[in-house]
This record gives sequence, structure tokens and C-alpha cells, in this order.
Amino acid sequence: MSCSDFNAKESIKPSTFLNPVPVVMVTCGSMENSNIITLAWAGTVNSEPPMLSISIRKERFSHDIIKDSGIFGVNLVSKPLIKACDYCGVKSGRDIDKFKELKLTKYQGKTTGIPLIKESPASLECKVRQIIELGTHDMFIADILDVHVSKELFDAKGAIDMQKADLVAYNHGEYYTLGQYLGFYGYSVAGKEALARRLRK
Amino acid sequence: MSCSDFNAKESIKPSTFLNPVPVVMVTCGSMENSNIITLAWAGTVNSEPPMLSISIRKERFSHDIIKDSGIFGVNLVSKPLIKACDYCGVKSGRDIDKFKELKLTKYQGKTTGIPLIKESPASLECKVRQIIELGTHDMFIADILDVHVSKELFDAKGAIDMQKADLVAYNHGEYYTLGQYLGFYGYSVAGKEALARRLRK
Repeated sequence: MSCSDFNAKESIKPSTFLNPVPVVMVTCGSMENSNIITLAWAGTVNSEPPMLSISIRKERFSHDIIKDSGIFGVNLVSKPLIKACDYCGVKSGRDIDKFKELKLTKYQGKTTGIPLIKESPASLECKVRQIIELGTHDMFIADILDVHVSKELFDAKGAIDMQKADLVAYNHGEYYTLGQYLGFYGYSVAGKEALARRLRK
Repeated sequence: MSCSDFNAKESIKPSTFLNPVPVVMVTCGSMENSNIITLAWAGTVNSEPPMLSISIRKERFSHDIIKDSGIFGVNLVSKPLIKACDYCGVKSGRDIDKFKELKLTKYQGKTTGIPLIKESPASLECKVRQIIELGTHDMFIADILDVHVSKELFDAKGAIDMQKADLVAYNHGEYYTLGQYLGFYGYSVAGKEALARRLRK
């Protein structure tokens, strides 16, 4: 196996240097009074039951809405959504109705009643389990109670093809599409048959 | 703003559907007895002080090592490292010495003493603050105490250019490079000058 040859490293100030990270549009509130906040401090934290966490600054408009209601939506971000996504990260729901301003379509998750974004390729309904105060941010640990996937992402056999979602990642303050497919989990030890079948271009 | 037109969605079984997520090589143990475990359930959780979380299955070899020592390293994964990264996710440190097997170079973090991977473009020294049992996984919330960045990533002005790191993301069970640069945080409301300067190709 060939590995990169990064030689000497330099110590910098401790910082949030984990990269790349997700970027998601989190929805909250009611169908009548909804908000969208863009977050990159988000991650999967447990497989069974499926759980994720999001971290929100205490002073953000969505913080108390989610704290009070105990539910939120996580809407994955595709390339065509990225400008709206960025906008929802810099503008406050105290000042504008982001759904209206961005002409995004609202629909209601049937499991929690949370508003979700129709234009997102996949939306997760989440219920807060625990809130942990960490410093600038509070971490909301939540159960994923329902997952909505766009019909466009299913292939002829009913499998989900995530390449069709054209998802975006956040890397050191910048947004990027996903690029070259490198392999699947377990490919380094897979047999020839699995490699031939799954190492598609 | 034009948005994608994903129309109807289908509800699937609740699952860990947040995508893309990071994929990192977590180092643990001592300089003499080290291990590497690949994790995708990782995320930044707080800005100040800088903190991240990783989630590990209780039965994994690295789980107790990190629980007992209270420290671990997070090594970011570049494209040339991806096969080694995948291998560290499927093989157990109970059976093999992964540093030796993969011919990776070990060096010691000066702040915590944790072993780190030289070939990784950036390595973070982390100290566990809290462990939360969630189900299949335990979540380790940790302070980021030191960040090591490869000198190759600094540009002439001393700024860090993360595109040079050629980082990999994990998307629904598959590894991808980062692709097209779409914009920077705040670009949707930035002035002409900032756009001209920062919306590079």
C-alpha cells in the first residue's frame, strides 16, 4: 500500500480542525412558524438505535426553539441547494422567514410533525434525548425516528444510490461536492468478485 | 436561487442516514503498544474550547484502551491513505500491529504523548472529557489539545490550504475525494470584492 508522504508537521493553536464534516440544513418550529439553521457541527453518534448529534450556539434563534419543542429535522444538502444552505447559516430567523425568502417548499414529517425541506434529497426526523452544555455550543443528542429519501435516489432494484444526491461537504470553511469514488467499506480485504461488482467507475 | 427539484420522498427504516460524514484514523495506546481504528462516527461538537466526539462500539479493541488512558489521536485521511484507512476499519488490533503491517510511521504528540500517524496531513491530540453510553456505541467527548498540520499545506503567506490535503469523505458506506469547490462560508451574502478574491476556481 502506498501512502502519502507528508513529512514534517507544525503545531498550530488548538482548533476545530476535523475535516471534512457534514453541512446540513436543520429545520425547527411548527408548520406555521418554522426556521432553518445551517450547521456543520453535526455527526452520527450511534448505530442502534440510530442517533446523531448537532451542536448549536446558545444565542442562535433556533437553539431555544429546539430546546423547547424537543424535535428537529436534518435536511441533507445537495449542490443545487448550497447557496440557500449558506444563506441559512449567516441570516437569522429572528429577522426573516427563510422558507419564504428562499422559496423552499415546506412539508410535514409524519412521525414528529416537524417541518422539512422538500428540495433536500433526504430528510431525517429527530427527537432530542439529551442536551449537553459544552462551552460556546450546546450539543443536542437525538434519536433518528424517521428518514425520508427522495424517490429519485432509488435505482431500478430499489437500492439507494447516494451519488445521485450530489451531496456537499464542508472543509475548513469551504463547501465542496464529493468527487472521485475510491472504494466501499471493506474493499481493502474484499475478494475479487466483490471488487469487480462494486468498484465501479 | 435555484434549488434542486427532488419531489416525492419515501419513508425508509430509521437509520444513520446523515451524509457525508468524516472518516478518520484514530490512534490510541502507548508508543510501544499502539493501535489504529478507523471511525466515521466522529464530529466537531464545540468551537471554544475546541472539542470533538468519536463513537466506538464497546467490543472494539480500541474502546477500552481509550477509556483507560483518556487520550487518543485523530488523524485526517488523504486519498493516498484510503486503503490503509479502510484496512484499519475491518481488521482488529487484537490480531495485528497495524502500524507495522501498513508500514505507517509513528510519532509522538508532545502535548499528550499519544502516538500519531506521520503520513496523515493533519493530526489532533485529544483528551477525553466525558463518555456517554448510547446503545451499540459509547460516545467519547474530548477536548482538542493540539493540532499538527503538515508543512506542505501552508501557502507562501502562511495560510493553510486544505485542498492540498486531498481529504476523503464517507458517504453511505463509500469513500470519496472532495470535488468541486462551491464557495466559502458567507459567500451568499458577500460583497463583490470578497467574491472576486475568494471564489477561485
